[in-house]
Amino acid sequence: MLTGIHVAFIGGDARQLEVVKRCIQLDATVTLIGFDNLESNFTGATKRPLTCDVLKDADALILPIVGTDDNGFVESIFCSKQLQLQVEHIACLKKHCVVYTGMAKPYLRTLTSAEQISLVELLDRDDVAIYNSIPTAEGALMMAIQHTDITIHGSQSIVLGLGRTGLSMARVLHALGARVRVGARRQEHLARIYEMGLTPFHISEIRQQVTNADFIFNTIPSLVLTAEVIAQMPQTAFILDLASKPGGTDFRYAQRRGIKALLAPGLPGIVAPKSAGQILAQTLSRLIAEQTISRGNQHG
Amino acid sequence: MLTGIHVAFIGGDARQLEVVKRCIQLDATVTLIGFDNLESNFTGATKRPLTCDVLKDADALILPIVGTDDNGFVESIFCSKQLQLQVEHIACLKKHCVVYTGMAKPYLRTLTSAEQISLVELLDRDDVAIYNSIPTAEGALMMAIQHTDITIHGSQSIVLGLGRTGLSMARVLHALGARVRVGARRQEHLARIYEMGLTPFHISEIRQQVTNADFIFNTIPSLVLTAEVIAQMPQTAFILDLASKPGGTDFRYAQRRGIKALLAPGLPGIVAPKSAGQILAQTLSRLIAEQTISRGNQHG
Repeated sequence: MLTGIHVAFIGGDARQLEVVKRCIQLDATVTLIGFDNLESNFTGATKRPLTCDVLKDADALILPIVGTDDNGFVESIFCSKQLQLQVEHIACLKKHCVVYTGMAKPYLRTLTSAEQISLVELLDRDDVAIYNSIPTAEGALMMAIQHTDITIHGSQSIVLGLGRTGLSMARVLHALGARVRVGARRQEHLARIYEMGLTPFHISEIRQQVTNADFIFNTIPSLVLTAEVIAQMPQTAFILDLASKPGGTDFRYAQRRGIKALLAPGLPGIVAPKSAGQILAQTLSRLIAEQTISRGNQHG
Repeated sequence: MLTGIHVAFIGGDARQLEVVKRCIQLDATVTLIGFDNLESNFTGATKRPLTCDVLKDADALILPIVGTDDNGFVESIFCSKQLQLQVEHIACLKKHCVVYTGMAKPYLRTLTSAEQISLVELLDRDDVAIYNSIPTAEGALMMAIQHTDITIHGSQSIVLGLGRTGLSMARVLHALGARVRVGARRQEHLARIYEMGLTPFHISEIRQQVTNADFIFNTIPSLVLTAEVIAQMPQTAFILDLASKPGGTDFRYAQRRGIKALLAPGLPGIVAPKSAGQILAQTLSRLIAEQTISRGNQHG
């Protein structure tokens, strides 16, 4: 339970509503900043403006997944006014207040560290990244089915990287009947790929591997699909780059060769905002509860 | 091989090109009627008009999946002229010529039976229906991911019917991590569902089963999702009806209750025309070869 804990939200999208709902269920005191146009009124949550007066009581401050932009502006699909998080807002927080976001830009990191306020970036956490890989893999399947004229079943599919997303991606492709090869560098990853009944290859062999590929799903956040590699692919290959921006594909060259290549970061919020919100809600409510317990222990 | 066999095509879509390609590979004599605007020139195929002179030499006549309409018109995406198959066209075919289509309307059935010409409806065949269930299931996944805000993983998914499509649908949902229940009537189907590690229920219990459903995939071609059943569903349920037109859903009532319900027949040609064409090509080339062998034996 979060009884007696004050949680303030600034902006967000459909995902944030799941977090709000969970906090109310757990009996937190919930303040919503930048939710003016939100139609469904949450009983037990109060809409307030972005002022120090509102923020000074917060035990947790929850920002959207994308945090702020480089100038401190916070996006909210529930508000037409601009929300700018400034140094005075962070300065008026209690010292034990924790700021939560998905990924922080330097702006937010600088602001919080200057005021010695803890900042938690949820997407850095392994558990959140693994849970998020579920809607990512489903979104990738959706796009692969949508953008090609063949089935995934029976296709030659290549996954690059066996990180948190790569593993989920390889598993769902295998489950749908694709012939799956996974390119990785680390020996323990190559071993895991073999254990899963898939075909491992070392990433250095990528040029030979792509020659008969139907689908290539990249999860490695560095330039692996270079012009030299793309040159080896069949004309009908489809590249879906799931690595964070700018991805790991030479998109310019792919386009020039007439090979369809798409960058698709942020799929969870697009294809399954409710499930993605529930993932955040579960993790955030646990983190806030833990934060309070540890503070209780320090003070006790 | 189909050496010495004359195969005539009238109209079609992207799928038919795969069949044309296969017939040429197998050395058949290929005539294309209603492919005037087709850009890629198949070496070894001749474009001709729809005349008796062209048809009289055919050993096999291949119509599009949807055959003719009620007035004998044949659709072709490669031709702007209208193509009408008339009694004189069928009358001038050799007696051993076989007409192939996906599903025949009464018009085509009457025409061929009057002239004692064999008519083969490919979609009636179990093997074709099973191969086709692969792109159908992938298309259904795509739509389910697209039209909802939750993941299939972890969802409460119900499949109605364990026929050729129902079984594939249940398998892919299970593979993606859904909690899958399958409603069927026959005891051997309920046994198979259990064997697959899924939860079987008798179709008579459908009203109790749908109360917590996230996804309902219907494959039964009769009205199973009645207003009484839909009334029991949560507001957020998503119905995808894969049965042939008009489906098995009271769409009017679903809309009135604000429950998203879509009829999606013909998915293979939409989401994977190339794979769907390859399925047809494989079956058709085998059937034409067999037809010729059996004729050879009769005459020998």
